[in-house]
This record gives sequence, C-alpha cells and structure tokens, in this order.
Amino acid sequence: MDLNSDLGEGFGRWTLGDDDALLTVVTSANVACGFHAGDPSTMRRVCAAALGRGVAVGAQVGYRDLAGFGRRHIAYDPAELTDDVLYQLAALDGFCRVAGGRVTYLKPHGALYNTAVRDDAQAAAVVRAVREYDPALPVLGLPGSALLRHAADAGLRTVAEGFADRGYTADGSLVPRGEPGALVTDPDEVVARALRMVVEGEVVAVNGATIPIAVDSLCVHGDTPGAVALAGRLRTALADAGLLLAPFAAP
Amino acid sequence: MDLNSDLGEGFGRWTLGDDDALLTVVTSANVACGFHAGDPSTMRRVCAAALGRGVAVGAQVGYRDLAGFGRRHIAYDPAELTDDVLYQLAALDGFCRVAGGRVTYLKPHGALYNTAVRDDAQAAAVVRAVREYDPALPVLGLPGSALLRHAADAGLRTVAEGFADRGYTADGSLVPRGEPGALVTDPDEVVARALRMVVEGEVVAVNGATIPIAVDSLCVHGDTPGAVALAGRLRTALADAGLLLAPFAAP
Amino acid sequence: MDLNSDLGEGFGRWTLGDDDALLTVVTSANVACGFHAGDPSTMRRVCAAALGRGVAVGAQVGYRDLAGFGRRHIAYDPAELTDDVLYQLAALDGFCRVAGGRVTYLKPHGALYNTAVRDDAQAAAVVRAVREYDPALPVLGLPGSALLRHAADAGLRTVAEGFADRGYTADGSLVPRGEPGALVTDPDEVVARALRMVVEGEVVAVNGATIPIAVDSLCVHGDTPGAVALAGRLRTALADAGLLLAPFAAP
Amino acid sequence: MDLNSDLGEGFGRWTLGDDDALLTVVTSANVACGFHAGDPSTMRRVCAAALGRGVAVGAQVGYRDLAGFGRRHIAYDPAELTDDVLYQLAALDGFCRVAGGRVTYLKPHGALYNTAVRDDAQAAAVVRAVREYDPALPVLGLPGSALLRHAADAGLRTVAEGFADRGYTADGSLVPRGEPGALVTDPDEVVARALRMVVEGEVVAVNGATIPIAVDSLCVHGDTPGAVALAGRLRTALADAGLLLAPFAAP
Repeated sequence: MDLNSDLGEGFGRWTLGDDDALLTVVTSANVACGFHAGDPSTMRRVCAAALGRGVAVGAQVGYRDLAGFGRRHIAYDPAELTDDVLYQLAALDGFCRVAGGRVTYLKPHGALYNTAVRDDAQAAAVVRAVREYDPALPVLGLPGSALLRHAADAGLRTVAEGFADRGYTADGSLVPRGEPGALVTDPDEVVARALRMVVEGEVVAVNGATIPIAVDSLCVHGDTPGAVALAGRLRTALADAGLLLAPFAAP
Repeated sequence: MDLNSDLGEGFGRWTLGDDDALLTVVTSANVACGFHAGDPSTMRRVCAAALGRGVAVGAQVGYRDLAGFGRRHIAYDPAELTDDVLYQLAALDGFCRVAGGRVTYLKPHGALYNTAVRDDAQAAAVVRAVREYDPALPVLGLPGSALLRHAADAGLRTVAEGFADRGYTADGSLVPRGEPGALVTDPDEVVARALRMVVEGEVVAVNGATIPIAVDSLCVHGDTPGAVALAGRLRTALADAGLLLAPFAAP
Repeated sequence: MDLNSDLGEGFGRWTLGDDDALLTVVTSANVACGFHAGDPSTMRRVCAAALGRGVAVGAQVGYRDLAGFGRRHIAYDPAELTDDVLYQLAALDGFCRVAGGRVTYLKPHGALYNTAVRDDAQAAAVVRAVREYDPALPVLGLPGSALLRHAADAGLRTVAEGFADRGYTADGSLVPRGEPGALVTDPDEVVARALRMVVEGEVVAVNGATIPIAVDSLCVHGDTPGAVALAGRLRTALADAGLLLAPFAAP
Repeated sequence: MDLNSDLGEGFGRWTLGDDDALLTVVTSANVACGFHAGDPSTMRRVCAAALGRGVAVGAQVGYRDLAGFGRRHIAYDPAELTDDVLYQLAALDGFCRVAGGRVTYLKPHGALYNTAVRDDAQAAAVVRAVREYDPALPVLGLPGSALLRHAADAGLRTVAEGFADRGYTADGSLVPRGEPGALVTDPDEVVARALRMVVEGEVVAVNGATIPIAVDSLCVHGDTPGAVALAGRLRTALADAGLLLAPFAAP
C-alpha cells in the first residue's frame, strides 16, 4: 500500500505545510512544479529529500494560476494543456535527475484533478503529455475518472487512490466540498475508513450503503493543523494491520 | 562554422521575430524557456521545427522577468539562479525529447548573458546547472567571459561566439549599446566583418586596432527589420567562402 | 456615435496592434490594465496619448491570465473577480489622473466579456467593482447581456455596442467564432452593415431575417492586417452620413 | 509617535504574518500592492480592517518580483520604475477609496527600499510617482536616505523611521544583515532602544558611540515568531512613557 501527499507547495518567501514531517510518513510525494505552486529551489530541495528517503516523486501538475493556487477551472485549449503539463513534468524530472532519480508518476492538482474526472478533452490532454514524455510513467487519480480511463486506453499504468477523510456517494465519487458529509474529521473514523478501504476493499457511502472500492494508494493531506499527526497515525495503523508500505512506482 | 540566433521569444498571444524564416538560415537555435520569454506551446513548436531541419536547439535561459524580457539585471542568490536555470533547461529538454532529440547546448540571455561576462558568482551558478544536468552540454558565450572560464574550469566544452554587427573594444569586449560604434548597421560591412572574423580570425576594434578573435559561432539577430535578410546574406557569404555551415553541437 | 477599440495590449517587449494609428480613428479606447495584457508604462503612454486627443479611456479589464491573453474562461470566485477588476480599474485610473483626466467607462475583455454575457455571478461581480469604485462610470457591453442588465439594476449607465464585422443570430446574439457566418470580412459589407446598424437600427442576421439593434458604440478591431484602414473607412462613412463622432463618456 | 509595520504580504493561498494581530498594535500599515506580495482580495481586506480601526494605510510598493518577494535588486529603467510604483499606488488607493479612506503615505519595500537609500535614479523615480499621483502624500523612509532627500527636494513631506531591533553604524546607517550587530534580539533591549530613540533622540551605534537620531515612526516587524508580542510590548512602553501613538498621516 502507498501513501501519497502534496509536497513542495510553497512559492518563494511563502511556505505551506511541513514537507520534512510529511516525508517521514508518506511513500509517494506529489511535488508541485511551479505553475500553481512550487518554485525551482523548493523543487530541488523536496526532490532531493524525498529520493534520499526512498520516497517516490510524482509530478503534481496544475493550471498556470499562482494567484488561484490552481483551484479555479480554466478552459484550456487541450493542446496548450498538454504542453503546460509536459513543461512542468520535464522541469521536475530535471531536479529528480540531478538528485539521482527520476519522476516516477504524475498526479494532477486541484481544479485540473477535478476537471480530469469528467472532462474527456482535458483528461486526454494530460495523458498525452505523459505518454509523449515517458510512457512508462503511471498516472495517479480517482478510480472511475476520465483521467484513468484515458490513461488506460493510451497504454499507461493507472493507479487508483482513495481518500479516507472524504465522503463518498453511492456511485463511488467524492461528495463535493461544501455539501453535507464531504469531510470526515474524526481521526479515529479516518483511520478506520482507511483500513476498511485497504483491507476490505469497501467504504460506507453517505447514504449508508457499503460500496466496493479498490485503491492502490491513500491520499493524505498535510496543509491543515493536525494533518501530519493524523497521517502518521494512519501509517502506523496500516503497518500494524500487516500492510507493507511502499511506493507504487519505485523512485 | 555555426550561425546561432534567438528563437521562440514570443509569449502567448505575442510573437517576436520570424522563427520559421530564421530556421532556414541558422544552424543553432537559442530557444527561450519561459522565464523571460517563450511559452510551452511555442517551445514545442520551435523545438520540433528546428530538430526537423537539423538545427541544433540550445537552452536560451534567462532571469525570471517577463515584464523586462530578461534585460534587467537581477541580484539573484546564486543557488536560486542555478535552480532557475536548471528548471528552464530541463523543461526545454522535455520538448526536444518528445521531438526525438535533445537540447545540445546552453546560452544565457540578455542581462544574464551580460552579467555572466564579468560576475563570477552568477557565471558559476549557470555553469553549475549545466554540469549537474548534463556535463556533456557545451556552453555558448563571449570569448574571455567569466561564463566560459567557469565552464572550462568545470570541465564543460566552451563555444565562443562573435557578433559581426557589434563594435569591439581593443581588449576584445563589446562596445556597450548606446556608446559610439556599438552597432554596425551597414549590411556590406557586417558581412565583411563576419568573413574577416571567421576566415582571418581578427576584427577591427573601435580604436582602429586590428585584434585577434577566435569564434566558433556567429550570432545573428532576427527581431529587427531586415535582420533575417541580412542573416541570409551572411550565410550565403560564408558558404561562398567555402565554409561548411553546421551546428557546433549536433542535434 | 462612438467608435471603440482595444488599445495598449502589448506587454513589456511585446507589442500588439498600432495604438497610435487607432487613436486617430476611435473616440473611445479600451485600455488593457495589466492582468491579461498591458503594463504600467504602456498604460501611461496610451492614456496620455488618448486623453491628449480627446479620446475617452475605458478600463479593459480581464482575467489574470497573461499566458492566455484573457481568452480562457476562469471559474473565478465572484468576490475575487470583483477585487481583481477593482484593482485594474483603479490602477488605470491612476495613469489617467496623472494625464489630467479620468477613466470614464469599463468594458470587460475576452473570456470575461463572453462570460459576462450569460453568467450572472461574474456579470454581477464586475458590476460591483464599478459601482464601488465610481457609480458614475458607464459599462460598455453587448445589448441584452447579463452584464448590462446587472449594471442597469445597480443604477449604472449602460452603453450597448455593435460589431459590424460579426454575424448575428436571429435573437441578436453574436454567431460564435468558428461557426459559419461568424465573421464579415468584405470591407464594403462591414461599412454597409455599420451604417445600417447606426442609421436604421437594424442588422441582417445569418438566417436572413432583419432584426432591430440599438447601439451607442461600434467596436472596431485593430490587431489584424488592414484593420486600422477599415476602421478609418468606417469613420469616414459615418461622418459622411452626417453622424457626429464623439465619446459616449467625455474624457 | 507612529508605529508602522508591513501588512498584507500574503499572496493567494499563501499567508504571511498575522495582519489582524498587528492591526491592534500599529498606527500605520504598509500594505503590499501585488508586485512583490499582496493580491487584490488581501488588499481590500487589510485596507478595510486598517481604516476601520483608524490605522493609516501606506503603499508598500516593490519590484515586480513575486518569486523573490521584492528582495532582489532589479536594475529598473527609472521611467519604468515610476510607472510600476504609480500602478501599485493607484491600485491600493482604489481599495482605500471603497473603504471610505485614502492611501496616506508611501514606503518602498525590500530591495527597492535599500536601493533608494543610496541610488539617486531609483529614489527619484519613486518620488516622481508620488508627486505625480498626489503631492500631498508623505514618503516614509530612512533618515539621510536618497529617497527622503529627493522627496524633500520635490516638495513632498518626508517621514523618518527608526528600527529598534537593528544595529546602527556610527554614521547613522543600518548595519547590513549578516554582519555582527545587525540584529537586536533581546526584547528588553529592543524596547529600551526604542524609548531612547524616541524620547532622547539618540541611539548607541555598534562602535559604542551615542549618535543623534530623529525619527517620526518606529518600524516593527510581524513575520517572525514573537514579533507581534514584542510590538505590543513596544506600544505599551511608549504609551507608558507618555507618548501619544497616532499615525503621522491621518487615514
């Protein structure tokens, strides 16, 4: 089982989250690439630290929108989106190469992640960048998303992630933020849901139904108070359950 | 002999120079990488077009200053400069890789170029990025510059360029823009100076003295009226003089 | 009657259109404010030149998207859109003040213009910025748009513009670019349509029906070859028809 | 006596310092204007909060360098610097106007502040923007700086500030960061130095000499741990000494 989290999301003078603490917990680091967050010196530092600990580095690619942190949908031309993704991916790979490793997967960020769940054009544009740059790179995303479907169609390896702290609808999609049941905040419940997802392959949806879910990675958050501690608990609980924690794509 | 020129210097809606015309003339294309000019889609297009014609692609790296087109000196921290250069270099290399080639050299742009002539810290910072990313990459710059000296000290191949349309001082440096004799505007004189530089290895300085100069590449400009036509005349004159025109670093 | 056009759409080293030529033709200049195009020095220059000729200056506000020239829809939070618009409007007004005048209207650009035709939230957000900054400022836009409706509801003066070089559907909206009949390219036809709009208050839609249209301003484009010449012909034709050409909002 | 501090220095998702806490301490808020830090929504919020508490708002103008937080010297063309400063000043003034007030002074940030201490061209460029926009606006800066000299020559009101937590050389300039004695970290000593500056008009320089210093405002920092608490102690100590704390430029 893999634990992934967003890292390197500062920019210049501004920091966000505790990268060093998260690196003691996760097995895969989604590193921001400079378009919605991240800057070259942060990228270098986080790539070196991650690879030095055996943590896999993935390209956390996003829209070109520093002011909006990549959280606002942008109606990109698909060809331009492919190019923006490829640029970010190659730049991050540069810092991995000089640290003695490589980028080993890609995960879209924020509004691009959400758009790629349902929008075929943007999902395909992201997939095209990965396939062009390195068809051996897996794509990390939501099970059932357009992104993973296009990735599979293109012959890429797909990796499905689950969110132990988010509510699910009966059809397996996430309850949108702002709606009732969107967030699971009780730490014990988060850990219990994570174990059930991973061990039993199921999750209780907001309507009370138990639905099947197959995940290869759990996403943990690091930018809220207590998040790192919770991620640490999750890691311990998974290990105690006998699960081997390791990156899905060796760094 | 090599002819190099700046290409891909548009940004989004804005274009600059005639990339397609220049690609029929030059043997090496210094492609902007997005920090002072250039955007991912332009980079893809120019890299593909250049490599398709056998023109070498070099990383035209610059300060992070779109508003100033990289022409304003910025007092970078050297480590941050290394990281900004490496980011740009790797990103451009991504577009070369998907076009079936590689970036095969690096040349700083604008204020970074000028700073790297004399400033050891910034020159060394640029060199560090090249050596870390790929020690086989040559650095293109001004003969006698701190940049080429640091590159040579780091074991990198150095390539010296000449400017047939610029005045030289007696010590071999360029007459600063704005001073008398800084620019040579007569096309016949530009061609004559180019031939003399390349064939005889000498140039007449602004004080009338004939000084030795050894160049491996001539830089031609493309963003002024008549520039492409002049570059074409230069290419023809060099060929007529029996010189083989070819990239110094095979694409 | 008023003729408006987009001006000041360069950025740093990059220029777009012929501002000086357009200023001899138009009566109102929509000046870009730095978020999708335009930079402070361009803003100063264009504001001074416009006001010096008696041309009114309007704030051409857009999304924060230099790379996309403000032509990509961005799913702004409405409150942030209000703030981004107010920032741009106030900054441009600063350059008008130092040139001895004021910004006298506002017109959204690109994707924001198109979004504000139908999207109530974004239209209202733009209107809020105008009303807060100066409730005496008119808003220039498409007749029947959400933008003008919200502006009127907020007590702002609204100014409707027509496009002599664009096709109209039977309901008075513009034929989307890319669809048949979207563009009118024959200069004679453009001039004839302009006169008919202004003098007769009607336009022939793409389905052949003659529909009523009431416009206070005609929008002319300046960033395509021949556009300035066409705009000049239009001005002459309107003057020959006895129409007084003057800004709808005195500078 | 006035206490000034930098506020509104976040950008988008990123925050910096505790604006709300600082507003309970200072009498003048130097609000970032979007070029090196700050964004429109932050500007609105901070301007409204400051003016609502009777805290004066000053334009904290800086170089266009988000990645470098305005802390890297940039070799601006003076005319472009004037335009960039005027743009920022006018934009911030827009948010003050809608909050029922006005920007009532200007203070440069970071590398621009430091450059304007000695560089006549950049100092004069900043002053020109203020004089053009509103010659009634005072300029806040270092006593003896080129900035205040040019401001005075231009007929502007000048306001001198002191730094109780910084070391001074015998000639009254600040000890550069990184050199011995540059920072005063003991809270008791900071408070004592502040009182001595303000009440006695003198400060002990790093060489032990007591030198005269006349300040109208004390600068307090808010972006380091404990800074707000220290600023609060300073405020209390000044009040206990019978000093009336009030903005030098009424909001």
